[in-house]
Amino acid sequence: MKVILDAFGGDNAPVETIKGAAMAVQEYGVTVLLTGDEEIIKRVAKEQGVTLSGIEIVHAPTVIPVCAESTSITKEYADSSLAVGLKLLVEGKGDAFVTAGSSGALVVGATLIVKRIKGIKRAGFAPVIPCVGGNGKYMLMDSGANIDCRPEMLMQFGIMGSAYMNKIMGISNPKIGLINVGVEESKGGELQLGAYELLKKAPVNFTGNVEPRELPFGACDVAVCDGFSGNIVLKLTEGVAKAFTTQIKGIFMQNFKTKLAALAVKNGMKNFKKQMDYTEHGGAALLGIAKPTIKAHGSSNAKAFKNAIRQAASFAQLDVIGEIEKGLQEIKNSAQETVK
Amino acid sequence: MKVILDAFGGDNAPVETIKGAAMAVQEYGVTVLLTGDEEIIKRVAKEQGVTLSGIEIVHAPTVIPVCAESTSITKEYADSSLAVGLKLLVEGKGDAFVTAGSSGALVVGATLIVKRIKGIKRAGFAPVIPCVGGNGKYMLMDSGANIDCRPEMLMQFGIMGSAYMNKIMGISNPKIGLINVGVEESKGGELQLGAYELLKKAPVNFTGNVEPRELPFGACDVAVCDGFSGNIVLKLTEGVAKAFTTQIKGIFMQNFKTKLAALAVKNGMKNFKKQMDYTEHGGAALLGIAKPTIKAHGSSNAKAFKNAIRQAASFAQLDVIGEIEKGLQEIKNSAQETVK
Repeated sequence: MKVILDAFGGDNAPVETIKGAAMAVQEYGVTVLLTGDEEIIKRVAKEQGVTLSGIEIVHAPTVIPVCAESTSITKEYADSSLAVGLKLLVEGKGDAFVTAGSSGALVVGATLIVKRIKGIKRAGFAPVIPCVGGNGKYMLMDSGANIDCRPEMLMQFGIMGSAYMNKIMGISNPKIGLINVGVEESKGGELQLGAYELLKKAPVNFTGNVEPRELPFGACDVAVCDGFSGNIVLKLTEGVAKAFTTQIKGIFMQNFKTKLAALAVKNGMKNFKKQMDYTEHGGAALLGIAKPTIKAHGSSNAKAFKNAIRQAASFAQLDVIGEIEKGLQEIKNSAQETVK
Repeated sequence: MKVILDAFGGDNAPVETIKGAAMAVQEYGVTVLLTGDEEIIKRVAKEQGVTLSGIEIVHAPTVIPVCAESTSITKEYADSSLAVGLKLLVEGKGDAFVTAGSSGALVVGATLIVKRIKGIKRAGFAPVIPCVGGNGKYMLMDSGANIDCRPEMLMQFGIMGSAYMNKIMGISNPKIGLINVGVEESKGGELQLGAYELLKKAPVNFTGNVEPRELPFGACDVAVCDGFSGNIVLKLTEGVAKAFTTQIKGIFMQNFKTKLAALAVKNGMKNFKKQMDYTEHGGAALLGIAKPTIKAHGSSNAKAFKNAIRQAASFAQLDVIGEIEKGLQEIKNSAQETVK
């Protein structure tokens, strides 16, 4: 199993990408193919005391800045570590790809260079978000790749999310929910009404509309919505959790008595923090692309990169894409049945 | 000052509406006009030992169910406590109106019976949400009245929210933020791009795009968005907060030591809970309607109704609607200037 890693993507590249790659080689026995400036990679590895055994390097002279136009990935940044990684992926030089670089450039690059799975309308970001009920986590798709969506896209997000959560997270018959303003079938706008109809007929365990207040309690295993709404869910979950954590820390720091209290619940709080740590689940899959592609968080550290590499390897090994293709074929078959 | 209260709206009506009305009369010296079945109101008041001095009753024989078609408010439920209340409002029999009944029926009823402020495209729900930074609260508009919005509507939400937060909450020059997937001006879809352009020129303190992760930290005083997105923000904030509270309670209940720790931080937690209690800020204003209209939470108790009545009275007394009309006039004038 060979995972391609964009060595220059993310706020902490290339130190943390190189360290994460080395950790993944050692822990999982995978080969990692780093893309980026070869000289810098070798120098940083030496400086950090990281051995490069099990790691290959493919030289890429530039790095695409986060603020660059997404489409520049096939133009002035065609030789960037991100673009070169995607080219290696499509050429079969690696089984899966990981980057913590620009999300927009990744969507454009993966779509144009690697291409989508046949029949898939749009690729979408699908992070796995920790929650306190259900299976302890849920996939949110799309979390921001597509601001505007059509009903068929949401239905396909359901099929892709179902295959992923089943294969990678081991959840049998994952519950697919449609994010909406109410649970009744008649709720929402044209997008939700159309998606509801399609999801009912799709080969997934569709549980109907899900109100956002139920998401943190694990009401479904895959929550589908347009990318604008998904981005709100992703970022607001992060924000409210952070605001709560900040306030509670403040309460514990008030005086000697409360500081003692903090010691008593330290373990419980630590476990809760670990349970809510998104980096435990790796990065966000870019589902819909013809080869396994993972977007790691921009602020990823070595551990997060290691986890994302493991996730990418599972993505390839467990043939999630084959499973998605099966789901699409089922829909095609049932549509043909209806015509007959 | 006379506030009309739908005595039969909400899960706890009419017991809690009647109690809340009596509390408001006593505490704020307002007159409350209750709409609903007169016989039942009198009987319940007697049973509960609530005096009806300062309270008037206008008989309305039916109650519109939450599940009824919204448009039924002008048809089979034209004699409901909600519809009768709105008619009294438009006839000037009261200065403001409060209901905890059906949101959909309220939007339709208020729009058709009371009508919108001249020039306002759509009315929207505008709850005030507690947060941990900034001014400790922000207005979210629209939180669910309009699934689909146009840029001009979002700009008007900004004007209305600005007037409200200034007059009712005493925030001078409120910061208006546009909820978006990134802070850069180029972010979002057609709706956000269009709204950004209009808000820049509007007579409000527009601070640009706001990412949802910054909302709980009080990044702006009024957050504007379409009703679908706003409903997600409202319900997800509630859900994540509840999930956190549940987990932390669990951590404190683990053993004797953690239960002792709970005692030490009890006051701090209690204050935080009060700070985060949405009922402290009353209900959601239905901004855009030509007369002050408040939607109280469906699960309101007497205290929440009392607060909503106080809020409705301030809404009328401080002439928020006059302030909104001024804002609209400014835009009209500056548009005429541009033409000249």
